[in-house]
Amino acid sequence: MAEWKNLDTLKAYKALEESGHRVDLGKVLAGEAGGERVKKYSVPMACGLSYNYASKQVDEEVLGMLADLAKESDLAGKFKELYNGSMINTGEKRLVLHHLTRGQLGDDVIADGTNKREFYKGEQAKIAEFAAKVHSGKVTNADGEKFTTVVQIGIGGSDLGPRAIYIALENWARANGHLLMDAKFISNVDPDDAVNVLKSIDVAHSLFILVSKSGTTLETLTNEAFVKNALVEAGLDPSKHMLAVTSETSPLAKSSDYLAAFFMDDHIGGRYSSSSAVGGAVLSLAFGPEIFERFLAGAAEADKKAALADPMQNAAMLDALIGVYERNILGYQATAVLPYAQALARFPAHLQQADMESNGKSVNRFGEPVNYKTGPVIFGEPGTNGQHSFYQLLHQGKDIVPLQFIGFKESQFGTDVDIQGSTSQKKLCANVVAQIVAFACGKEDENLNKHFDGGRPSSIIVGEKLTPESLGALLSHFENKIMFQGFLWNLNSFDQEGVQLGKVLAKRVLAHETEGALAEYAALFEI
Amino acid sequence: MAEWKNLDTLKAYKALEESGHRVDLGKVLAGEAGGERVKKYSVPMACGLSYNYASKQVDEEVLGMLADLAKESDLAGKFKELYNGSMINTGEKRLVLHHLTRGQLGDDVIADGTNKREFYKGEQAKIAEFAAKVHSGKVTNADGEKFTTVVQIGIGGSDLGPRAIYIALENWARANGHLLMDAKFISNVDPDDAVNVLKSIDVAHSLFILVSKSGTTLETLTNEAFVKNALVEAGLDPSKHMLAVTSETSPLAKSSDYLAAFFMDDHIGGRYSSSSAVGGAVLSLAFGPEIFERFLAGAAEADKKAALADPMQNAAMLDALIGVYERNILGYQATAVLPYAQALARFPAHLQQADMESNGKSVNRFGEPVNYKTGPVIFGEPGTNGQHSFYQLLHQGKDIVPLQFIGFKESQFGTDVDIQGSTSQKKLCANVVAQIVAFACGKEDENLNKHFDGGRPSSIIVGEKLTPESLGALLSHFENKIMFQGFLWNLNSFDQEGVQLGKVLAKRVLAHETEGALAEYAALFEI
Repeated sequence: MAEWKNLDTLKAYKALEESGHRVDLGKVLAGEAGGERVKKYSVPMACGLSYNYASKQVDEEVLGMLADLAKESDLAGKFKELYNGSMINTGEKRLVLHHLTRGQLGDDVIADGTNKREFYKGEQAKIAEFAAKVHSGKVTNADGEKFTTVVQIGIGGSDLGPRAIYIALENWARANGHLLMDAKFISNVDPDDAVNVLKSIDVAHSLFILVSKSGTTLETLTNEAFVKNALVEAGLDPSKHMLAVTSETSPLAKSSDYLAAFFMDDHIGGRYSSSSAVGGAVLSLAFGPEIFERFLAGAAEADKKAALADPMQNAAMLDALIGVYERNILGYQATAVLPYAQALARFPAHLQQADMESNGKSVNRFGEPVNYKTGPVIFGEPGTNGQHSFYQLLHQGKDIVPLQFIGFKESQFGTDVDIQGSTSQKKLCANVVAQIVAFACGKEDENLNKHFDGGRPSSIIVGEKLTPESLGALLSHFENKIMFQGFLWNLNSFDQEGVQLGKVLAKRVLAHETEGALAEYAALFEI
Repeated sequence: MAEWKNLDTLKAYKALEESGHRVDLGKVLAGEAGGERVKKYSVPMACGLSYNYASKQVDEEVLGMLADLAKESDLAGKFKELYNGSMINTGEKRLVLHHLTRGQLGDDVIADGTNKREFYKGEQAKIAEFAAKVHSGKVTNADGEKFTTVVQIGIGGSDLGPRAIYIALENWARANGHLLMDAKFISNVDPDDAVNVLKSIDVAHSLFILVSKSGTTLETLTNEAFVKNALVEAGLDPSKHMLAVTSETSPLAKSSDYLAAFFMDDHIGGRYSSSSAVGGAVLSLAFGPEIFERFLAGAAEADKKAALADPMQNAAMLDALIGVYERNILGYQATAVLPYAQALARFPAHLQQADMESNGKSVNRFGEPVNYKTGPVIFGEPGTNGQHSFYQLLHQGKDIVPLQFIGFKESQFGTDVDIQGSTSQKKLCANVVAQIVAFACGKEDENLNKHFDGGRPSSIIVGEKLTPESLGALLSHFENKIMFQGFLWNLNSFDQEGVQLGKVLAKRVLAHETEGALAEYAALFEI
């Protein structure tokens, strides 16, 4: 059994705290030795990806201490307990089983009276069968016409991950004949969100997936009502256009309001549910179930790498360790995720949830306050767009923000133009390379307005091309990185009690059970 | 003449630093007094908006010191110098004239041999005339058919602001019969961005606007080539489909490659160019010039408010002062912008550029290092989506992140459903109200995992409805807030030298003029 201890009680952490040793990026990246460092400081990942950390403020000495920390914290042992079905989500008394949606790393996990790997596989098989019927025209609308559009109705984990993945693969699918249905997403309780999506589609040829684990998420039920209204107004029977993705115990599970229901369970947190039926239904309908299987295979391959005990072979673990070093020893407060791929436009927003909701906490897994920093603020936009936006602050601002770059050698469409001697894809790649070195090494200038201190750390994940497999591997990398950081900080990364108070107060406002400040704020909106 | 002095040399700032006085939000918002505070701590803004700061960590004592700071820093005097045409952008030796695109607050500004207000008005008049011809069918494609789509090709300031504004008003325009043309945007040098947009439109009925002040932005010229290829492949003459927005001295200005050219100038920074021809052309084509005029009118009305010397009457100035108090005295590092309006989905991304590129700096306007924190990290997503994502960290994380909420009483479409006794719009408003109080006041719980410390500050801008006018006022508010913060920090908020080094290194990579680390990073991408 792994021992769950606060970070600041670990000897290896104290050694890091006491060490005054710091790495000067400008120095270690200079000259030929700098080139050697770039070649050496790289960990192979799944699906042809690699994690390069040459521009992180680490060297053999720091890496040695981080490896000690990994060992003393027993990161590999804790992950093993997790995938073997221990009750890791202590607060909610649940297992943490999202890895089982894409593979099995250890023992059979039996819970709720069933083999969970078989359960998840079975749900995906049901989805695949249903999707095949939709694509072949066996399941159609009342006029016998094929469905052309699928609309996901969900919020948070039922929205951000599946949406980011859909956007990431939409162009790839279009270029390769795999875009079988358009996908749209309705999430916000703002009525304009639902109305806007409904105006953009042909409801008569649309399937709607209601996604809510509990079946009680207010935003989602409200948006379902919008959709049902629109279907009825168009003279259609809503029950012939709607699917549910929910838990077997939810009120939605056996309702005749839905054409079909597919299940997840309480052992998969919303923000980790992209590889469950939550992502599976919409993505299998949009791209075909075999493409979703390829995505799952990529994630499974990366999960295997994440199970290796040696952080020098395990990019997710190393990334987590370096992140904790930056947060707790070097004192950096935010991290920017910067994919040089327009297709990953919403991937930072998904990671923002995955990371900040998992590790944005102040008490450990036993409910005791911790005396060290935990999860950072996560934000990001695709490059090169970000370069023309907030990079000014990243280069010359007063605070250092560690950077997580992502880049691919090839574009998804493969269509390109050659301008001034290079293709757009080469320009894109040249830009991310240039940024890494500019951030790390800086540039002296007598005019201090044009001077760059350097010393701004980054890592980069490099891949051949953004495909279902490499995207799956990328998602797994970050999920596992966040998990390892939660282990290091001794947090329960799988609950989210911080979202509850707002819900309670919102209900009070709607019930007019308010007084004082709450009443006056409500009055601003004439509630 | 205003005196430009570093923040930490001001007496009022020293008084703030030395004051140990701190406001406990839970206490000041409690009971009836809390309700009174919400009513009182509000500044009327332009176009029916109001800025409420009752949940900021200020009281009469702090506000008094901030008012002293505004006075000693001569914020109103500096703004007056700016709008009267002083050379405020010292690094680039330029004036700062974006306010003149929407109104005139002071003296005539004569530069480059012309009255600048007349110049900007003249360009917008040219745009309006051209747009009217497009809308009426006097300017058509070669087959005499109307153009239905307008595509903006630009990056950074030529993209984020106009795109955010288009998205903000698209539904409003659709609901009110003002959506005359669809607008699309191509920005990233990633070839998949241009290919994706080109696949989504009918090029034969599309106008393309090339937006680059210098006429040399590599991303933009590269994307122009994509568009020209697509037009030629469709058997069309590119010069009949393309417009330019540029400076009069740019190589694009008089080229026969373009159907028409509209001008901005060097006195308008990219991130402040939404109200110039950069936003004017695409938005006048999409919505009609009279809608863009309404947007300008809203911004002009807010600019007038920003010229008031008393921060208690000037929301932009007060917001700026409170932000500096939070950054420099309370030590907060980031700010989240959280609009409760799906239409403002990309407004935080625009503010991220506007703020971080303006004030993410470490030297003052004289090129001397400053010893205090400057611009914070800015990020955000619309509510209620964010509630189901990163709010966990905002509520219970180890660092406090000040919040800037925005909300409206009415939706844009006006279409709604009533579920569990309230409309979606009421639920949306109830949620933002609840969040403010939850963040500020927290909640005691013996189970510390369910405990909320509170003391997390926010402000809210409340409006009736997101319209062209209120959106213009909102944009002006933030532009002016950023300007006042730049004055307080004694920065030049109008240059961006921090983006240059990356550009230089990217050129070296593309020219294979690399060695050491740069060469090895390039090798990762096979450059």
